[in-house]
Amino acid sequence: MIAEILSIGDELLTGQKIDTNAQFICSELAGVDIGVQRIIVCADSEEAIVEQFTDSLKRSELVLVTGGLGPTRDDRTRKSAQQLLKRGLVFDREIYGRTLERYTRRGQAPPAFLRDNAMIIRGSVVVQNDLGLAPGMIIPCGERFQGHHLVLMPGVPEEMEAMMRHTVIPFFSGKSGCCIVHSHIKTTGIGETALAEIIGQIESRLPEGTSLAYLPHAAGVSLRVSSIGTDRVSVESDNREIVEAIAKEAREYVYAITDISLEELIGRLLLSAGLRISTAESCTGGLIASRLTDVPGSSRYFKQGFVVYSNASKEKTLGVRAETLETHGAVSEAAAAEMAEGCLVRSGTDIAVSSTGIAGPDGGTGKKPVGMVCLGLALRDKDGNIDIRTSAFYAHGDRLRNKLRFSEAALRMVWKELTNSLMQD
Amino acid sequence: MIAEILSIGDELLTGQKIDTNAQFICSELAGVDIGVQRIIVCADSEEAIVEQFTDSLKRSELVLVTGGLGPTRDDRTRKSAQQLLKRGLVFDREIYGRTLERYTRRGQAPPAFLRDNAMIIRGSVVVQNDLGLAPGMIIPCGERFQGHHLVLMPGVPEEMEAMMRHTVIPFFSGKSGCCIVHSHIKTTGIGETALAEIIGQIESRLPEGTSLAYLPHAAGVSLRVSSIGTDRVSVESDNREIVEAIAKEAREYVYAITDISLEELIGRLLLSAGLRISTAESCTGGLIASRLTDVPGSSRYFKQGFVVYSNASKEKTLGVRAETLETHGAVSEAAAAEMAEGCLVRSGTDIAVSSTGIAGPDGGTGKKPVGMVCLGLALRDKDGNIDIRTSAFYAHGDRLRNKLRFSEAALRMVWKELTNSLMQD
Repeated sequence: MIAEILSIGDELLTGQKIDTNAQFICSELAGVDIGVQRIIVCADSEEAIVEQFTDSLKRSELVLVTGGLGPTRDDRTRKSAQQLLKRGLVFDREIYGRTLERYTRRGQAPPAFLRDNAMIIRGSVVVQNDLGLAPGMIIPCGERFQGHHLVLMPGVPEEMEAMMRHTVIPFFSGKSGCCIVHSHIKTTGIGETALAEIIGQIESRLPEGTSLAYLPHAAGVSLRVSSIGTDRVSVESDNREIVEAIAKEAREYVYAITDISLEELIGRLLLSAGLRISTAESCTGGLIASRLTDVPGSSRYFKQGFVVYSNASKEKTLGVRAETLETHGAVSEAAAAEMAEGCLVRSGTDIAVSSTGIAGPDGGTGKKPVGMVCLGLALRDKDGNIDIRTSAFYAHGDRLRNKLRFSEAALRMVWKELTNSLMQD
Repeated sequence: MIAEILSIGDELLTGQKIDTNAQFICSELAGVDIGVQRIIVCADSEEAIVEQFTDSLKRSELVLVTGGLGPTRDDRTRKSAQQLLKRGLVFDREIYGRTLERYTRRGQAPPAFLRDNAMIIRGSVVVQNDLGLAPGMIIPCGERFQGHHLVLMPGVPEEMEAMMRHTVIPFFSGKSGCCIVHSHIKTTGIGETALAEIIGQIESRLPEGTSLAYLPHAAGVSLRVSSIGTDRVSVESDNREIVEAIAKEAREYVYAITDISLEELIGRLLLSAGLRISTAESCTGGLIASRLTDVPGSSRYFKQGFVVYSNASKEKTLGVRAETLETHGAVSEAAAAEMAEGCLVRSGTDIAVSSTGIAGPDGGTGKKPVGMVCLGLALRDKDGNIDIRTSAFYAHGDRLRNKLRFSEAALRMVWKELTNSLMQD
């Protein structure tokens, strides 16, 4: 079954409010194998709504509408549906009784609009509103629209969500014939285009019904593999085959084939290895620590972080040698190494990661341009000896993007180290 | 001028990602008096895109498209526009040169797709992409669509936002013939509805041509006052009058009447007072330091930060007393005070701010619920004595939102202190 979602409301078109209802509905429908082909935000005018209802019902079997439903003057959804379908309203005694009871129970006089609120478009299935006043409606649209359905719901998220879960999804889930599987592949350290080159061969021989989407975001690229068909077993096997092929081909960059963040994965690896981590940051200014502590329960493995922005603090707090800073500069792998080592020793953790670089927009030189970062990693082995690794990385963006990319590179270094050392054990 | 926004991407139709680009574009367009009549999310298939381009260009003078633009195989926007307009591509030497330079500067071989990336639809105005590879295009659509314009932009928010601000808005705002003034009012520590109550009187008597938009974001609420008219002098005076009235009425919450962030303002205040700052963070995990160092040039006043997640690190690194942690707990104003003081002394700065709280989802108790944070502020006065202030603050969100709100409350405390002490001087 193919669906379309309409969100009605002028406030969504002026940038004052963001439409979150559509996302909720999409994700509920995906769960019962109903695909959404379009989401449309439309102004709160009868003309626009009727025009949009017509377009949408022509091409989609199921049109779900939120907003513009309710007893106030600017709510025009019900009226537009009536106009389009040329149907009258009928008084629903049960809705009236239920809403009236809410007022009488509280000893309040019922408002005048309560009768109008209980008027339902003829021929529709009522969707109870347990959290508000305006009832929803599932309206079979008859011959003109080939038996397609129009579903009207209020725009208040909680009211709409309860209606979707309790009535709309159960009503339509029985009616869908096909099965959909989505998988996620999370990558780090590679851009969309370079990734596309690596997995181009796989992409060019996707089985029928399977598609691949690139979901780039500020820190990296996620992939989604979607498979659709009528037989669940073959849909799942098609999907798994592609996911495994991509994970193998791009193994250097794929950190998970489930929808988790890199910092969550690092948390799991640290917990399973019984290791604790600390951070020593210059150019990332606390962002690595902040990302690690974005994960619930991170206090079990993240112990401490140092933000050493000034040279004085690098020396005094982490024991970086003045000579190193003079000879190699604060932005150097030598400084990163001493920062990581000092951090490890002072925090008493098993692993420490450090960053020192130039986030920009100023401060770059020919040899050390804006966007350059040096990273350090200090590890305590089983005998208590400290191993140090360093690397350099270049980003290309504005200050905030560079900070984010730097932090991603640092987390990547930690991830690689943890997977390597876990594999050796 | 009437506009329509198309967001292209399957991931927006499965509920896996929410379309935030449309809201940004709506709000930018509202600022130059271009009304949006529809927002449409459309699947990433050529057939669907061409069909939608046709419908949208028929009814709207300006159709802005995000997503599906880029050199990978699943990006079908450029191809769909070509098909619709029956136009070829031309090689843009400047784009090619600019993108090539990014690789050569880093000593990397340019990828094969770089030439294809620089192919532009014939007759279009190029929109430079300063943050990514794929260029945008402003395409006059010729007679078939009555001279309407199609604008193609990538879906990555920062790339699209920069394009809108630097090229698209200036291009189209010049075509409207009237004069527009926007002002920004930045607030902190108050929600949208409470703010609306405070400035309700002003809002109800806005001069003709002047409008007020609430732009709530995760950390607070910004206001935009837009005035439009034909006479620049009166447009500016109308605008200024409302901005001043709001800044006066909500003075407790308004930190700037220009579009800067709270951390930028703090940076300016610190610089003008010649003061240096440091941070001591528990629950915010480095986020306060990271926000302070998001500001270019922040190394002039931000010296050092400590992320003390474990109790041991609070004691060892900052000198918080074990007795304080035992008697009052790590989440207490007493602990926040000692963290701030220890941070001030160890970093040798003039001001230090600290946070200790419960970001959640676990770890809350009856007396100390999830969402509670204790903040500390230590200041060195002219005689070298240390003043300490503390406060407690409550947020109601998930872990990430709580961290952000906590960091905002800490920055607010710094802002208030700096403005008070600067006023006394």
